[in-house]
Amino acid sequence: MSAAYARTVTEADVILFAGVSGDQNPVHLNQEFAEGTRFKGRIAHGMLTASFISTVLGNKLPGPGCIYVSQNLKFKAPVRAGDTVHTRVIVLDVDQIKGRVRLETLCRVGDVTVVEGEAVLMVPRRLSTAAE
Amino acid sequence: MSAAYARTVTEADVILFAGVSGDQNPVHLNQEFAEGTRFKGRIAHGMLTASFISTVLGNKLPGPGCIYVSQNLKFKAPVRAGDTVHTRVIVLDVDQIKGRVRLETLCRVGDVTVVEGEAVLMVPRRLSTAAE
Amino acid sequence: MSAAYARTVTEADVILFAGVSGDQNPVHLNQEFAEGTRFKGRIAHGMLTASFISTVLGNKLPGPGCIYVSQNLKFKAPVRAGDTVHTRVIVLDVDQIKGRVRLETLCRVGDVTVVEGEAVLMVPRRLSTAAE
Amino acid sequence: MSAAYARTVTEADVILFAGVSGDQNPVHLNQEFAEGTRFKGRIAHGMLTASFISTVLGNKLPGPGCIYVSQNLKFKAPVRAGDTVHTRVIVLDVDQIKGRVRLETLCRVGDVTVVEGEAVLMVPRRLSTAAE
Repeated sequence: MSAAYARTVTEADVILFAGVSGDQNPVHLNQEFAEGTRFKGRIAHGMLTASFISTVLGNKLPGPGCIYVSQNLKFKAPVRAGDTVHTRVIVLDVDQIKGRVRLETLCRVGDVTVVEGEAVLMVPRRLSTAAE
Repeated sequence: MSAAYARTVTEADVILFAGVSGDQNPVHLNQEFAEGTRFKGRIAHGMLTASFISTVLGNKLPGPGCIYVSQNLKFKAPVRAGDTVHTRVIVLDVDQIKGRVRLETLCRVGDVTVVEGEAVLMVPRRLSTAAE
Repeated sequence: MSAAYARTVTEADVILFAGVSGDQNPVHLNQEFAEGTRFKGRIAHGMLTASFISTVLGNKLPGPGCIYVSQNLKFKAPVRAGDTVHTRVIVLDVDQIKGRVRLETLCRVGDVTVVEGEAVLMVPRRLSTAAE
Repeated sequence: MSAAYARTVTEADVILFAGVSGDQNPVHLNQEFAEGTRFKGRIAHGMLTASFISTVLGNKLPGPGCIYVSQNLKFKAPVRAGDTVHTRVIVLDVDQIKGRVRLETLCRVGDVTVVEGEAVLMVPRRLSTAAE
């Protein structure tokens, strides 16, 4: 029981994300600064990558109608413009009584896990049955 | 030891976030669908609100140069276009040996907590001393 | 000898401009803060309005091929999302020897002048003749 | 008494700026046209570079709450996608009576000054004292 979404992160995504989040950290926007960091160049916002998890959860599994309860995130490796991020969510367990689904959430670039974590969603009964 | 960022979420933010994340969940973009949900109208992406946490962490405290290790998020209440989100991060403890800072992270609209959680960041020694 | 451009400024323009410029001044993005200022609400970036001058100069008069030498700007009144800005440039004089054109540059909303100033452009001979 | 902001200009910035300003000058967007100009390729909008000045003024010095009165700009050299623009503002004098601050404003790429000029801002008394 899983679903996935893959997307190439571009410079435009990073700039638009900087605009809507307000996150103007120079590691994302200033190549000269970023070259002096351990990343040796600009990287995408970790939360941009994490947002792909919400994309799979809200659009595919459990899908529209579910309610985001919580999300844990571990940022394991940087994502750069040009990288294609593959995001997968896997149902871990379904609590029929509470109408909750717990899922493993994973983002990777090639063989490298870039973000990992766990999500809990509240699912209308009709959906929670479908999600089993 | 805390820092804050406040920002009014607009329809444009929601649409741009939908664009860069790919999260086209109708609860964010389809007013007719959203009116039929418990939210009674369109809401902003939870991850858009959560991104403000990254903004404070990366730009103010601990600030540029720090590395995002992990973030836990609990989505407590919806944010709608027109709401001004106040995000605050508060240092909980600093581990000088590991060069890590743990912070409480809170987003609220008026008196309502909309997102809460905890972040861990790795901080260059120079910064971790400043963060004490 | 004049040319004009009119455009309605939207919230989306303000947010995109905040993104590409990095100008996250709360008077543009935080309604609660902005209500406490003399403007009594969010306003657009002055440089966004000023950019419409460049639009007329570079696209219409003198048009593509000209080179921006200088621009003076006086910010006279705020522009808000929903305002339609009318920008007009008027040739003041043409220096055939130096290949330079000097223009008055005006932005207004309704009857209110919001930005005024003067521009100097270098114009290839062919264009400077056309601009007389 | 000075403040600075540095940012790498990308193709995405140029395209987004073209979108919000309406400045579709082919020297910014049409590589074939731009190669035939003295710039030998696409350049960023001068007003995009100039907007970084507003970013420093409004966010750092004098900072939020100040009001932009005027800005003079001289465009000295082109900026291209990939260039990191360093913008610095330096207080020239503070008029306590009028509550005004005059600043030198400079943008450079490497050792090359790309935009220079002068800004005047109105500053709430509290801020103007801090700016001395």
